[in-house]
Amino acid sequence: MTQAILESYRRQIESGLLRSLDGEAPLRSVLRYHVGLEDERGRRTNATGKLLRPSLVLFVTDELVGNPASALPSAVGLELIHGFSLIHDDIQDRDRIRRGRAAVWTLVGVEQAINAGDLMHALAIATALKSSSAAAARLVEATQEMIEGQCRDLEFECTSVSTADYLAMIDQKTGALLRCAFDLGGIAAGVNGRIQVLLNELGQVVGRAFQIKDDILGIWGHDELLGKATDSDIRRRKKTLPVVQLFERIEADDQVTLRRIYDMQDGPEVAEDDVAWVVDRLNELGVRATCETMVQTHLTEAMARLQELPFSDSAASRMRDLIGFLARRET
Amino acid sequence: MTQAILESYRRQIESGLLRSLDGEAPLRSVLRYHVGLEDERGRRTNATGKLLRPSLVLFVTDELVGNPASALPSAVGLELIHGFSLIHDDIQDRDRIRRGRAAVWTLVGVEQAINAGDLMHALAIATALKSSSAAAARLVEATQEMIEGQCRDLEFECTSVSTADYLAMIDQKTGALLRCAFDLGGIAAGVNGRIQVLLNELGQVVGRAFQIKDDILGIWGHDELLGKATDSDIRRRKKTLPVVQLFERIEADDQVTLRRIYDMQDGPEVAEDDVAWVVDRLNELGVRATCETMVQTHLTEAMARLQELPFSDSAASRMRDLIGFLARRET
Repeated sequence: MTQAILESYRRQIESGLLRSLDGEAPLRSVLRYHVGLEDERGRRTNATGKLLRPSLVLFVTDELVGNPASALPSAVGLELIHGFSLIHDDIQDRDRIRRGRAAVWTLVGVEQAINAGDLMHALAIATALKSSSAAAARLVEATQEMIEGQCRDLEFECTSVSTADYLAMIDQKTGALLRCAFDLGGIAAGVNGRIQVLLNELGQVVGRAFQIKDDILGIWGHDELLGKATDSDIRRRKKTLPVVQLFERIEADDQVTLRRIYDMQDGPEVAEDDVAWVVDRLNELGVRATCETMVQTHLTEAMARLQELPFSDSAASRMRDLIGFLARRET
Repeated sequence: MTQAILESYRRQIESGLLRSLDGEAPLRSVLRYHVGLEDERGRRTNATGKLLRPSLVLFVTDELVGNPASALPSAVGLELIHGFSLIHDDIQDRDRIRRGRAAVWTLVGVEQAINAGDLMHALAIATALKSSSAAAARLVEATQEMIEGQCRDLEFECTSVSTADYLAMIDQKTGALLRCAFDLGGIAAGVNGRIQVLLNELGQVVGRAFQIKDDILGIWGHDELLGKATDSDIRRRKKTLPVVQLFERIEADDQVTLRRIYDMQDGPEVAEDDVAWVVDRLNELGVRATCETMVQTHLTEAMARLQELPFSDSAASRMRDLIGFLARRET
C-alpha cells in the first residue's frame, strides 16, 4: 500500500540527502550506502526506506504555509541524525543487518563505523543550519534526548524495568526524533502557541505507537519482510515492551526461569529452547493483545490531536492514513 | 612555567564547561569526569588540562574587541568537540589512559562510551549556537574536517604513507580544531578580509607545530609527565611523522625489517626488541632533529603571521610565549 505523504516528498528528500552526502571525501560513499542511496559498490539504488521523519517535517510545513521548501534542509538533517544513530546503534547491539542490508560496521569495521556515524552527525547539523538557527537548535536538542534514551536502553540490560520506565525511555529514544519532526515542520511554518503544542503532542503519541508496534514486530514479525530474524529481540535479551509486560505479569513459579534466561551470565544469546519458552509464556498471557491495544490507544490520541490542527480535510485524511499504516505495518 | 593566555581564561572556561555539562541527566557525570571537572567518584577536581583551544578563542576576541564574553559559548563548544573526539579516539585506539586518568570506555564500556561521545558532540553544538549561528556553522565544519582526518589516520594503519600524506592528514585531524579556534575568535569579534585569513593561517601553522611536537613526545617523551608509556606510538604501530620519515630514509637493507615490524599480521603490539630496534634506527638517522626543525619552521611562520595581526605589543608577546611553550613542552 502506497502512502501519499511518504510518496509526495520522497524525491525532494532523496535529492537533499544526495546533496549533503555528495563527493569523494572520506566516508561519503559509506554514508550514501547507509542511507540507501547506493549499494555496496557505489551504484545508485533505491533503499532509502520509508523516510518517515523528513516526510512528516515537509508535510506539516506544506500544509501550514503551502510550500515545504524552507523546511527541506532541516528535514534532511533530521533523517541524517536518525541515520547516524542507527550506525552507532548497530555497533552497540552488534546487529549485522539493517533493513535487509549489511550494517556499516560489518563493511568498514567498528573503528571507521564510529567515524562514519560522527561524520553523519556533523553533516546533519551543517544541513539543518541551512533552514535556520532555530531549526538546528531544535534538532540538536532532540539528538541529545535521543542519545539519553539510547543510554537508558543500554542500562536496561542490567536492571529490572517497569512499564513506566520503558515508556519514559522510548519517549526519548524514539519519541525525541518524531516529536522533532512535527516541531521542525512547525518551526519552518513559523507557528507558535496552541498549534506548536499540538504538533509536539502528535509527535509524542505517534512516536509511542510506532515504537510499540516495532517491539511487537521484533517478536511476532516475519523474517523476510523485516530483513532480520524474528524473535531476535528475545534472542538478544532486549527488554522491549512485551518482555517488560511479561516480567510484570508472569506467575511466581515462572519468574525464576524468566530471570535466569534474562541473566546476562549465560552468554550473549538466549538458547533456542529458552526463546521458545519465552514466546509460549507471552502467548499464554496474551501480551501481544495488550501491546496492540496500547498502539490503538495512542492512535486514538493522535487522531484527537489531528482534528484540532488547522489541516485541510484532504491533508488530515492523508495523515490519518499514514498513522494507521504505521500502526498496522508488518515490517 | 605558567602561560598568561592559558591562565587568564581558565576560570571562565571551566565555569562554561560546568554549565554545559551540569545536572543529573544520563552520562553527565561521565562527561564531567572526562573533561577533568570531576574525579571518578564525582568529586570536584582540577584536571581540565591546558584548555588550549578555548583559551585561544577567548584571547583572540578579547584582543580584537576588548571583551571575550561573546565568544565564550563557542569556545566551550570547541573544547567539547575536542573532548568528544578524544572519547571516540580512545575507543578506536584501545587507549586505556588519557592524560594520566582512566579513559572513559574503560569505566563505562565501549557501548556507553560511544553514547557519551555522541552526547558531548550534541552538547557542543547546542552550546556554540548560543554564541551565534555563524560560530556553530564554523564549528560543525571543523568537526567534519577533524573526523575526516581521523578517518585517514586509521587508513594509514594499512597503507604506506608519505610525509605529504601525513601533513595533509594532521592538517585535518589536529589542524581543523586549531584553525577553528582562531576563526571563532575572529567570528565573535566580527573580523573579515585579511585579518580573517591571517588568523586561519596562524591556526594552521600552530596546529602543525603542535602535532609534530606531539609525535616527538610520543616516542621520546617521559612517561611520568605524559601520563602514558613513551615509545607507545611505536608499540601501537602509529604512523606518526618520525616513523613516516624513517620509512622514507632508512637504507634498503633495513627496509625489510621495518616493513615486517609495521606489518599488522604480527598481532596488536610490536615486541620490545623491535621497538628498541626502531628507536635505534630513528636515532641513527637523526630523525628527531629533523622533526624538531620542522616544529621550528612552523613556529617561525607563526611569528610572521602574528606580527601582521593588530594585537597590542603585550598581547603579541603573550602569544609568542604560548606558541614557544607549545613547541618546547615536555608533555
